[in-house]
Amino acid sequence: MNFKELCRTRYSVRAYRPDNIPAEKLEYIKECVRLAPSAVNRQPWQFRLVTQPEERDKLQQCYDRDWFREAPAYILVCKNTEEAWTRRYDGLNHADIDIAIAVEHLCLAAAEQGLGTCWVCNFRVQLCKELFRLPEHTEPSVIIPIGYPATDEIPEKTRKPMADIWQED
Amino acid sequence: MNFKELCRTRYSVRAYRPDNIPAEKLEYIKECVRLAPSAVNRQPWQFRLVTQPEERDKLQQCYDRDWFREAPAYILVCKNTEEAWTRRYDGLNHADIDIAIAVEHLCLAAAEQGLGTCWVCNFRVQLCKELFRLPEHTEPSVIIPIGYPATDEIPEKTRKPMADIWQED
Repeated sequence: MNFKELCRTRYSVRAYRPDNIPAEKLEYIKECVRLAPSAVNRQPWQFRLVTQPEERDKLQQCYDRDWFREAPAYILVCKNTEEAWTRRYDGLNHADIDIAIAVEHLCLAAAEQGLGTCWVCNFRVQLCKELFRLPEHTEPSVIIPIGYPATDEIPEKTRKPMADIWQED
Repeated sequence: MNFKELCRTRYSVRAYRPDNIPAEKLEYIKECVRLAPSAVNRQPWQFRLVTQPEERDKLQQCYDRDWFREAPAYILVCKNTEEAWTRRYDGLNHADIDIAIAVEHLCLAAAEQGLGTCWVCNFRVQLCKELFRLPEHTEPSVIIPIGYPATDEIPEKTRKPMADIWQED
């Protein structure tokens, strides 16, 4: 499938089958993530695959939704703001931007492999940091549930019309 | 090409041919950008294609590099922090994250179409805002030069080894 089809195929999957993710698909996705660009190539990111009951429970405490519990695995994505590049003109630390690039690589690679994901940002960040005993400059950014979608139907996307987001001089 | 090949194909292009971008390739890229996900689907982004001499000059003032001047076109990407979703747990405004997702869609779509891009973040942000007379909640985030790469050679990527970025429980 071409990239535009891939963009249409990726959507926020909130219903999963319990099946595990095949190892070769996971390896493929990991490599797509590893190849992601970042500001000054700092790669200020850590990914943690969570499948074990005790660790799953920690994430479910941080984001307490029925659908979220169904996912066979999660990837906890953490940023390191000290390692990330900071723009001198306005002091903007680029960790969030770098993380977002890598996570979108993850979601697109998964969609290509027939797997569903969902960007979960609205979780209890501080609790997550405590439960996983993350080191000082490591902050949890996003949790990505991952697994086979429960349905094959891909919903249509609701997006702004092109004229609202794109200008040409 | 599959997504992993596409991730390898995209790199920071800093030498361009002067040829213009074919309209159909640009339309394809725009649609891949428009389809990008964002927190709570807010799509807090604006894209401005810059090709005219006067506008090009403005961007070149903000990022004064010889290689940058060669690009036949630029896309100025702006975020709207008021429109973007903010996480209540730590107050993190997600505009940067949303922008990063959409811009990486742009760069990947361009690479698939044989076009080069480069994430330019290290530009004079405040000057850019003034020169383009951007409205109050609109901030320039990234400038993406775009065009055919001067060379067909794709450099090998330098990335951290998997063991440094990925953990499994």
